[in-house]
Amino acid sequence: MPITLSSASLPVFQTALSNLLHCLNKAEANAAARKFDPNVFVTMRLAPDMLPFASQIRIACDAAKNGTARLAGIEAPKFEDNETTFAELQARITKTLDWLATVSAASIDGREEAQITFPVGRDKTRTMTGEAYLKHWALPNLFFHVTTAYALLRHNGVDLGKADYLAGEQAGA
Amino acid sequence: MPITLSSASLPVFQTALSNLLHCLNKAEANAAARKFDPNVFVTMRLAPDMLPFASQIRIACDAAKNGTARLAGIEAPKFEDNETTFAELQARITKTLDWLATVSAASIDGREEAQITFPVGRDKTRTMTGEAYLKHWALPNLFFHVTTAYALLRHNGVDLGKADYLAGEQAGA
Repeated sequence: MPITLSSASLPVFQTALSNLLHCLNKAEANAAARKFDPNVFVTMRLAPDMLPFASQIRIACDAAKNGTARLAGIEAPKFEDNETTFAELQARITKTLDWLATVSAASIDGREEAQITFPVGRDKTRTMTGEAYLKHWALPNLFFHVTTAYALLRHNGVDLGKADYLAGEQAGA
Repeated sequence: MPITLSSASLPVFQTALSNLLHCLNKAEANAAARKFDPNVFVTMRLAPDMLPFASQIRIACDAAKNGTARLAGIEAPKFEDNETTFAELQARITKTLDWLATVSAASIDGREEAQITFPVGRDKTRTMTGEAYLKHWALPNLFFHVTTAYALLRHNGVDLGKADYLAGEQAGA
């Protein structure tokens, strides 16, 4: 089977978000073991001028959701960025995964050369082909925010390893 | 043009490492502006039990180099992990990019179903198809270490933005 635009995108997005949810679940258990409220993670930052943990999760979810929608040429649901608790961030990942599961591979395949225009920053857009958008925007953007969320948890003492990021619940199996 | 195993791998690896080099170059300039030796970055960590900056750069380079070699079914050059200066880490990225430029797309294409066995940890290996290896190991592993290096620089006050990671020297263009 040759690689396709759908096989190079949808399962990668789904695995990245599933593994991210696994890392949040481990962080929740770690907070319980260390006897603090997991909600303290929500506002943590690696630098004062970096986005907080909540934003890293929201943008990771939107990178997968909006990336998929743009590749498929369909409308993505809009999720409010109103999570204030750790549980709500876990739910944001779950509802993104639920929506991704509704998208068909057929709606993505064949759109390698489709012109995709997307916002970059406040008042600018950029246009790339479907294939370039996947490879040089959607995937690196998704992994950037997933890894930054992971780094924030590790920086704050959560017992995660790279296997949790790469393999999720299969880590250590 | 349909997406291919080579088009989904080689240019993505090359862009990620080029943009990483751009971030290191900005960090070097930032250290000069703030009047400290950029070599202090080399040993920095986000947590005491995380790998230092030098290892993040080495592993990012090896994720691209060894990932490409395994996808192509060829032997990769072995680079010693002996960098102790910031300039040597910049050179590690450059020599990895130089080697990647020698690999032909034709050597990778058609290997979607090839069985790829690779080391995971000290005494274990894992086997995946070429396509799965690219999507669920090589790419996420590469972006993990590039992003962690970026996060270390940002955490230490270097003036980087996500555009530097996504677009490298084209950031702001």
